[in-house]
Amino acid sequence: MLVERAPETFRQKQNIDVRIRHEVVGLDLSRQRVQVEQAENGKSSWESFDQLLIATGASPLCPDVPGSHASGIHGVNTLDSGIRIRQVIEQKKPKRALIVGGGYIGLEMAEALVRQGLSVALIERSSEVMNTLDTDMGALVSDALRRIGVELFVEQSLQAFEISGGEVSAVVTDKQNIPADMVILGMGARPNSDLAAKAGIPLGEKGSIRVNEKMQTDVEKIWAAGDCAQTFHLVSRRPFYMPLGTVANKQGRVAGINLGGGNAAFPGVVGTAASRICDLEVARTGLMEKEIKQLGIEYASATIKSRTRAGYYPNSGGITVKLLAEKASGRLLGGQIVGAEGSAKRIDIIAISLHAGFGVDQMINLDLSYAPPFSIPWDPVVIAARNLVKLL
Amino acid sequence: MLVERAPETFRQKQNIDVRIRHEVVGLDLSRQRVQVEQAENGKSSWESFDQLLIATGASPLCPDVPGSHASGIHGVNTLDSGIRIRQVIEQKKPKRALIVGGGYIGLEMAEALVRQGLSVALIERSSEVMNTLDTDMGALVSDALRRIGVELFVEQSLQAFEISGGEVSAVVTDKQNIPADMVILGMGARPNSDLAAKAGIPLGEKGSIRVNEKMQTDVEKIWAAGDCAQTFHLVSRRPFYMPLGTVANKQGRVAGINLGGGNAAFPGVVGTAASRICDLEVARTGLMEKEIKQLGIEYASATIKSRTRAGYYPNSGGITVKLLAEKASGRLLGGQIVGAEGSAKRIDIIAISLHAGFGVDQMINLDLSYAPPFSIPWDPVVIAARNLVKLL
Repeated sequence: MLVERAPETFRQKQNIDVRIRHEVVGLDLSRQRVQVEQAENGKSSWESFDQLLIATGASPLCPDVPGSHASGIHGVNTLDSGIRIRQVIEQKKPKRALIVGGGYIGLEMAEALVRQGLSVALIERSSEVMNTLDTDMGALVSDALRRIGVELFVEQSLQAFEISGGEVSAVVTDKQNIPADMVILGMGARPNSDLAAKAGIPLGEKGSIRVNEKMQTDVEKIWAAGDCAQTFHLVSRRPFYMPLGTVANKQGRVAGINLGGGNAAFPGVVGTAASRICDLEVARTGLMEKEIKQLGIEYASATIKSRTRAGYYPNSGGITVKLLAEKASGRLLGGQIVGAEGSAKRIDIIAISLHAGFGVDQMINLDLSYAPPFSIPWDPVVIAARNLVKLL
Repeated sequence: MLVERAPETFRQKQNIDVRIRHEVVGLDLSRQRVQVEQAENGKSSWESFDQLLIATGASPLCPDVPGSHASGIHGVNTLDSGIRIRQVIEQKKPKRALIVGGGYIGLEMAEALVRQGLSVALIERSSEVMNTLDTDMGALVSDALRRIGVELFVEQSLQAFEISGGEVSAVVTDKQNIPADMVILGMGARPNSDLAAKAGIPLGEKGSIRVNEKMQTDVEKIWAAGDCAQTFHLVSRRPFYMPLGTVANKQGRVAGINLGGGNAAFPGVVGTAASRICDLEVARTGLMEKEIKQLGIEYASATIKSRTRAGYYPNSGGITVKLLAEKASGRLLGGQIVGAEGSAKRIDIIAISLHAGFGVDQMINLDLSYAPPFSIPWDPVVIAARNLVKLL
């Protein structure tokens, strides 16, 4: 979480009474009030509301295994957690860091810790890191991590932490013990929905607060937005939980407009995410193979290797694009990109095509921008579409 | 024009009999044959055909003004013309170059000649360079050119060239004389359609060869594709001439498939183009204000200034995005982007939205990729859409 504005700014410029270090510990729906506890003195009081927006965010998933409360085990979800980890590195000078989980947070932390001079290992349940990609694409990311010296322990799951003198000293998986002076949790996030659930507000996917496209919960006058709230997947046409800043921003805007008496809707996501890991840009959108299979859809896929820019141009780099489409209709279902600088933002081509409900054949003639500093004449995404059409 | 394959490669790998230095000088539709002249010996012969594809490309527009055949005046459309210009610079060491026309070619040449150490001036008929942009956006490009020392003479039109000893010595506009040792023509391209026209094949926009979406001309068994052929504008729903490599590639593919007995179509373009000028990336798509007015459409526009990447991230730069939409329906009509590295490829977001026929309101919730190395949480294009919606 990044803090863009100070409480004073909210108060002075926007007439919003922001109270930090105040925690809502109870929600009384029938009397329309919340119980607020002040961190400073532990005092609690009730505050009434006409409309309530729940924007409690998410917390890093913390494994319920022996030793998980040892010192030296860090989640990463706020500026403070980043600052704390840096302090620990400076003060305790850990040598061996172990990352639990090969998602965005885990991989970005792995790279950052390698740069800090630590020896870094990572455990991941799947066969490749970045399991929001299909394994063939994830393998490209695993390779990049190994190239910078990260030791990967794949297809292993966390069983326990070993503790020595109150500090974590090793991670126990179902296959081995891995010594570690510092552990970073990158196991994903869970919505902070306990308060809502206790008050009787219905939850949805992965325990997130169920909302409609206006950001209303199932309870009148109660709204929810951001990492605590559910969203909708426009490709699978199913409820979906996606705690990312882009989604939170859009949900917040829609909730704000509607709370203020306006009329806005957030129809949902297509599942777009991007990240930079080492020298690779990684991006994905839509459904991946596993999800398509779960929906029982027959599909085809095409993967191509191409260049980000004209080959004779400086900084031309490799790019791998994978597209997935429904076999019967030719409808685009998703795509993944891994490549050099200039690769990731191309996922937007695929994302918008998903929003538009394009068939892969419609992607071939998209009038995309070309000049040697930016692309090759046929954008790599379109080359993948051309190949995929032949397989449908 | 870039040469990707040698004639031998065509012959050996693809069984295509490529004959270079052979010019088709006559086309006899009734007897299905072409008259071919060999450059080497001037010999001419007739070759018959079953199907004929005309892919004669375009030539730089050459002004029909006094002195236009003087030495030292260069068009730029082939590798050879680039090589020749470099030779002239090395051998004759010109000091003052003058560019006629502020389009892509003119601007790229202006920058290249500044880098070669020449003093560079440019004349342009409009009030700003890059007249495929609205003037407010073009002004940003004019500024960038002036920053690298290019002297701009705007709102002036070419009247004549002055010659001294057979060599160009000055350019005469309707307002002044500008001395020059070297002149580069960047006045656009005209289709090489004379051969087709003489044979009675109907022409269309700007003298390009009229084709349908299968790349058939109005004459049976005669096809045309590339810079000599017309295309269709999917936003204005009118015939359009757009001699760019992206269009030529797509038309060539479709013509080839159909000639080979297959079935493909190229529905048309939305008008996308991108270029890098100095430290600026410049891109446009759809209709510009002038075109919208010509169609008699009431429109609104929004222009925003934002950042290409998260402000705290290295290489975050400025970006200006302009969007145009139909007032009555909210339908997106076009967009233009000028900004730092990472700006231009964002035009694809607007281009695909045009293909999809999106209203500007549909662009607000597009699930575009975000991570600090690639964007800000709301893509600048979406910020422009948010502002534009309020004006509709």
